[in-house]
Amino acid sequence: MDFELRPVSDAGRIFVDLCESHQDVFSSRAAVHDRDGNFPTENFADLARSGVMAATVPAELGGLGVSDLRDQVVGINRLARGDGSTAIAANMHIGHVRGMSRTWRQATAAGQTARADGLAHILRGVVDGSVIISAVGSEAGSPQQRPMAEAIRDGDVYRLNGRKSFATICPIATLLSVVFRIPAETGEGWRIAASYIKRSTPGVEIQDNWDALGMRASGSNDIVFRDCLISSRDVLDIGPWGVMTDRVLALAAHGIIGLLGAFLGIAESARALALRQITARGRGGESGVQHQVAEMEAALASARATLERAAAHANELLYGSTSPATRDQVVLAAKEGQLAKMIVARHVIDVVDRAMTLSGGSGYMAASPLARMYRDVRAAPFMQPFSPLEIFEFVGRASLGIAVI
Amino acid sequence: MDFELRPVSDAGRIFVDLCESHQDVFSSRAAVHDRDGNFPTENFADLARSGVMAATVPAELGGLGVSDLRDQVVGINRLARGDGSTAIAANMHIGHVRGMSRTWRQATAAGQTARADGLAHILRGVVDGSVIISAVGSEAGSPQQRPMAEAIRDGDVYRLNGRKSFATICPIATLLSVVFRIPAETGEGWRIAASYIKRSTPGVEIQDNWDALGMRASGSNDIVFRDCLISSRDVLDIGPWGVMTDRVLALAAHGIIGLLGAFLGIAESARALALRQITARGRGGESGVQHQVAEMEAALASARATLERAAAHANELLYGSTSPATRDQVVLAAKEGQLAKMIVARHVIDVVDRAMTLSGGSGYMAASPLARMYRDVRAAPFMQPFSPLEIFEFVGRASLGIAVI
Amino acid sequence: MDFELRPVSDAGRIFVDLCESHQDVFSSRAAVHDRDGNFPTENFADLARSGVMAATVPAELGGLGVSDLRDQVVGINRLARGDGSTAIAANMHIGHVRGMSRTWRQATAAGQTARADGLAHILRGVVDGSVIISAVGSEAGSPQQRPMAEAIRDGDVYRLNGRKSFATICPIATLLSVVFRIPAETGEGWRIAASYIKRSTPGVEIQDNWDALGMRASGSNDIVFRDCLISSRDVLDIGPWGVMTDRVLALAAHGIIGLLGAFLGIAESARALALRQITARGRGGESGVQHQVAEMEAALASARATLERAAAHANELLYGSTSPATRDQVVLAAKEGQLAKMIVARHVIDVVDRAMTLSGGSGYMAASPLARMYRDVRAAPFMQPFSPLEIFEFVGRASLGIAVI
Amino acid sequence: MDFELRPVSDAGRIFVDLCESHQDVFSSRAAVHDRDGNFPTENFADLARSGVMAATVPAELGGLGVSDLRDQVVGINRLARGDGSTAIAANMHIGHVRGMSRTWRQATAAGQTARADGLAHILRGVVDGSVIISAVGSEAGSPQQRPMAEAIRDGDVYRLNGRKSFATICPIATLLSVVFRIPAETGEGWRIAASYIKRSTPGVEIQDNWDALGMRASGSNDIVFRDCLISSRDVLDIGPWGVMTDRVLALAAHGIIGLLGAFLGIAESARALALRQITARGRGGESGVQHQVAEMEAALASARATLERAAAHANELLYGSTSPATRDQVVLAAKEGQLAKMIVARHVIDVVDRAMTLSGGSGYMAASPLARMYRDVRAAPFMQPFSPLEIFEFVGRASLGIAVI
Repeated sequence: MDFELRPVSDAGRIFVDLCESHQDVFSSRAAVHDRDGNFPTENFADLARSGVMAATVPAELGGLGVSDLRDQVVGINRLARGDGSTAIAANMHIGHVRGMSRTWRQATAAGQTARADGLAHILRGVVDGSVIISAVGSEAGSPQQRPMAEAIRDGDVYRLNGRKSFATICPIATLLSVVFRIPAETGEGWRIAASYIKRSTPGVEIQDNWDALGMRASGSNDIVFRDCLISSRDVLDIGPWGVMTDRVLALAAHGIIGLLGAFLGIAESARALALRQITARGRGGESGVQHQVAEMEAALASARATLERAAAHANELLYGSTSPATRDQVVLAAKEGQLAKMIVARHVIDVVDRAMTLSGGSGYMAASPLARMYRDVRAAPFMQPFSPLEIFEFVGRASLGIAVI
Repeated sequence: MDFELRPVSDAGRIFVDLCESHQDVFSSRAAVHDRDGNFPTENFADLARSGVMAATVPAELGGLGVSDLRDQVVGINRLARGDGSTAIAANMHIGHVRGMSRTWRQATAAGQTARADGLAHILRGVVDGSVIISAVGSEAGSPQQRPMAEAIRDGDVYRLNGRKSFATICPIATLLSVVFRIPAETGEGWRIAASYIKRSTPGVEIQDNWDALGMRASGSNDIVFRDCLISSRDVLDIGPWGVMTDRVLALAAHGIIGLLGAFLGIAESARALALRQITARGRGGESGVQHQVAEMEAALASARATLERAAAHANELLYGSTSPATRDQVVLAAKEGQLAKMIVARHVIDVVDRAMTLSGGSGYMAASPLARMYRDVRAAPFMQPFSPLEIFEFVGRASLGIAVI
Repeated sequence: MDFELRPVSDAGRIFVDLCESHQDVFSSRAAVHDRDGNFPTENFADLARSGVMAATVPAELGGLGVSDLRDQVVGINRLARGDGSTAIAANMHIGHVRGMSRTWRQATAAGQTARADGLAHILRGVVDGSVIISAVGSEAGSPQQRPMAEAIRDGDVYRLNGRKSFATICPIATLLSVVFRIPAETGEGWRIAASYIKRSTPGVEIQDNWDALGMRASGSNDIVFRDCLISSRDVLDIGPWGVMTDRVLALAAHGIIGLLGAFLGIAESARALALRQITARGRGGESGVQHQVAEMEAALASARATLERAAAHANELLYGSTSPATRDQVVLAAKEGQLAKMIVARHVIDVVDRAMTLSGGSGYMAASPLARMYRDVRAAPFMQPFSPLEIFEFVGRASLGIAVI
Repeated sequence: MDFELRPVSDAGRIFVDLCESHQDVFSSRAAVHDRDGNFPTENFADLARSGVMAATVPAELGGLGVSDLRDQVVGINRLARGDGSTAIAANMHIGHVRGMSRTWRQATAAGQTARADGLAHILRGVVDGSVIISAVGSEAGSPQQRPMAEAIRDGDVYRLNGRKSFATICPIATLLSVVFRIPAETGEGWRIAASYIKRSTPGVEIQDNWDALGMRASGSNDIVFRDCLISSRDVLDIGPWGVMTDRVLALAAHGIIGLLGAFLGIAESARALALRQITARGRGGESGVQHQVAEMEAALASARATLERAAAHANELLYGSTSPATRDQVVLAAKEGQLAKMIVARHVIDVVDRAMTLSGGSGYMAASPLARMYRDVRAAPFMQPFSPLEIFEFVGRASLGIAVI
């Protein structure tokens, strides 16, 4: 594949090679998991064994040391060529660990020993395979800045109740990074808080209710919390409730990048499949075929270029300086991340659609990988934050220099 | 629904009312048939009971007497609002019977008593429910003008062998209208022939292999013929093999119309569902919602208008005169039918896609009717003749006045 | 041209034949008027001579008696095949006269003799060529429901001041139908009023400032009113200011239809030109050409079908009953008119763009009619009311059953 | 402007700064040159004075030393924000000089002293302003690989006759790089040859016939050669006639890049203008506005990313190694260049179109810069080689691994 995304660092190259090494096996397992809608546990055993699950743990702590967003997206992209569901599940864990590693590095540099040690403990767990993380932020019907799951203080503990959704990778997660709301200390209104909660904590119920049109093997179940106790020391206040904070915007900026890499990988597989079929059938000389192929290539070229550039810009805007990114930088990065989502989502859906057209109908059969890809790829525009119904307003306002709220 | 398609005759109005009366029940049964991929036999029992299955049988022979293509398309459209698979299966039978009724009328007028009586016998069978017809013309991998199933003469009979595909409604069909090739009498090359073959004929094997991304309850299985004997009197030579005859073009002109009515009905249901959801959630005031809705309405308006006009033109060009349509008229009608396919297929896919966007993600759950509609509607561009890889050349040539071959 | 729009009445057929008879001459004159941006006065002399200018005057009063919106749109369509600017200028007059004739008929039927006589006087002037009407409703920067030109009462007269824009055909207009605001009698707020004002009235200044990218020969100048006196008897209160009244919505419903006919005619000419060129160059066999042609035909098919259907529905909803249309009917008709604008505007722009592509670059030369058509056709989406920035909200709200304001 | 293209070298940064310094003045002069269709000679006097015209001459020879295609495209992009016509005219000269400087460097390294000295002489002329180059390769109606202008040998000279088109910048060019055909020495068929021909050579007639819809100030006139004598030593055989040689493909790969930078600059100016207007009118809060802006930003983001990536890849594939690029590399680079043309051309046309929509109609007035940009940007898809009628086949074949011919 000529113009595919490439890693930018040595660690990235190792990571991407490993991801590619899993591709064929994951591809061969994809149909059954898709049909049954169950989680590809054996894929994750493979990923743990090869080191992919610890890719973003710092080398000092035993990981591969991948720290650049551009490298993350390329590896996830390669996994998705084998199986999209596995890729977005892996991305959930790997992306979160990348952020944690960055925080560990900052804490270490700042001499915050306790914090650094706590994080190092978790990161070492990632390396030995005892820790798999699911970031549990989304809720059906509520945007990221308005979580309805809430924790009420009761002496030294908080009591968490609520339902979170789209908790990708949760079937095998051991540690949940949960976002919820807590009453403000002023007594008026709410704050947003986050905490790591072990899966084994009483009151945590991971449901088995993910049953979607596509991405069926991603384990994106609901998680219900019932009177789940969290030590107040473990609850981190991360800002006001209901407000488009830098945290939510940063999520819109970098959180989307890895996911888009996965969707791109699905489209690349569909394209490869379609071209193999056309060649095998000797239909490459037909003008109708060539036209579809040219449009497919254009869509892919635009998707790859936009994603690569958005990843580089997010890297630069968010992590390019030792001082934290300014509000303007964060808004810019979020705008570009969401533009990338608009562009890549349209193009990957278009590429798979054209691959199906090129299949001449065989891709419409349930047993064809194209039928799965057609369903999988439709999830792209829904990726949070900023739904397809909200994204025009956000990008419009950010571009016009109007406050994004 | 404000601007929906409307019947144009009294018989059409009765037919459309009957079709509408089945809508809710069919809708309630659709999910299970879609999941299991089995044929909705009980829907067809209902359709037989209400008279829909005999809609296009002349009133003189006990049917509803629907003869106008415009009326056929509206009724099928209404059935599809309940269940797309049922609608295309019904269309297969109803459309074929409409053509047969027309032939009966012509034969009667021409005093061809034997032919008229033969057809009347079948048409009365349609009325009493003993005859359900599947038109078995398509083959996977071969266009309509080059069937590979072949019948070789052996004394007074032909011996038919081959595999036909996409034999919609075949699970309950009692009579198959089969197209195949026979050796030309000159000894060189092939002719195309057609015959009615009873399902019970030895050597007819209706497979149970329809398992697609969508339209899963349409029973579009393969049928295999193994040394199936047909009396030579029942084999009708219908033209040269490998040539774009008027017959194939007429199929491109009127055969597509009913099918497009079905796909339009699916899109209309998706639209109605999305608007109900938006209203129930009180989100109608959001600009992102209004924009999607406006585009959805535009797509529907264009699809309806184009389909209505194509149906009217096909009616006029193909049946408007007592003398047979000229080649130019047939080419024009075929061009407009295929343009209608291009336009309607794009729009109905777009409408269901926007309905899914408006669902905010709930439509992406497997249990949502939108997920089924999203899969169903993708079949539209594949409808034969002229695949999405061939249609540009056909329409381009027809428009430029170059021979279509 | 195979599937073009057709008149529906005998009067319409005569009108359309006449319009077609002017096509070649107007086409030959178009380039010079476009280059110099001046008004094609000689075209209108021809139109007066042939009877086209009196087409919508009732036969009883000496006109052709064209009363159906569908016939109006077809005639305008044919004029535009010769010259788009002439067609929209003619439409301004012909469409307004159609409405006036309808009012005359209603006044006559209701026994409102004085009103009927006044209108008959004007309509006879249309027939003898002494009356040419420009409807002066638009203002740059203010929507139809909020005119800023205002008339203040001063005894028995009103004194009108203000600037109106886009007064198409005004270079030869003798009578202006002007919309402005007047203080409400309650002393609070404004009302909207209309009056016929003779061009020769002191204080009326028709400017010569229309200098646009396209439609350069339409004479769509500004008109400035300075202390222009109008008898208070001639000032008609037509509703509250700032409100989306039935009157504005009806304009959105039927006013747009004739204009769209003109834009369609431009696209049809571009298409005909492109096909002639392709055929003359012997390039019809190229797949790249066939693909563009097929897409061009699809765009035209959708535009024609949608416009025809919208015209028929507007006719039925607005004029189908002897009682005035209900609010719901008016909103529906306005919605469909605006959907037609969305669809037709996109398609005609697309058709001319593809014709330019097919020209292989020769159409990009200033002297090519395609270059003029490319500029002309871009005016389509700007046609009032509802700008391209407002139309999604209007259509969205109308579709969702939310009040349109 | 947040995510604009950026230079990659120090020389590039100087070049881009200089280009930006001309922007406002060129912008102020653009309207008059566009109206009159004459060449902006004074802009080129400014560009000579500032050093831009010698940007791609090696520093050793007195130029700025810009050698990277990525830097070239950014500078041209900035010029185009002021005036698109000036930018494509400058690109013609600057791009050609970049190639010549590269050849000089190779000749020098290879010890080809005579060739190096000849080129150095021309390059020093570029620096002192006595040499301005127009690459005269295109002909109306013939693709790059089939020039019809021909030179016939006559002793020590060739006699050149023919007409070339689209000779951008020719009104001030002093040296023409002309491509034509010569009889093959074998006596059968033709070869393609190139020669530098001084403008002052007898028989060279630069016409004043460029009169197009847009890019009216680019001086893209025809040049007619009548018995123009060229020393046979100055005629360079560059390959077989009628064949898609590496030379033509390389043109498709790098020649298009600078031009696309110009078209992008036009779109960026249109976008900036539209946003300033919207902000000045206080309409940024309208949802219809935000939607258009978001789509405009997405189109720009994709265009920028794709162009940047294509430039980087062309650089790497064509110049990344000391050995000449292989056929596969050249085909790949040509494919990506043409994909960039497909993508960027669509997006820049779309951006200017949306800017016009956002203008609310004021951009449709002839005096608005948007009206000029709307016309200018439509030239993008016509840029050679590979017309919009041929590009799908080329890209399709290249992607399918079928020989491109």
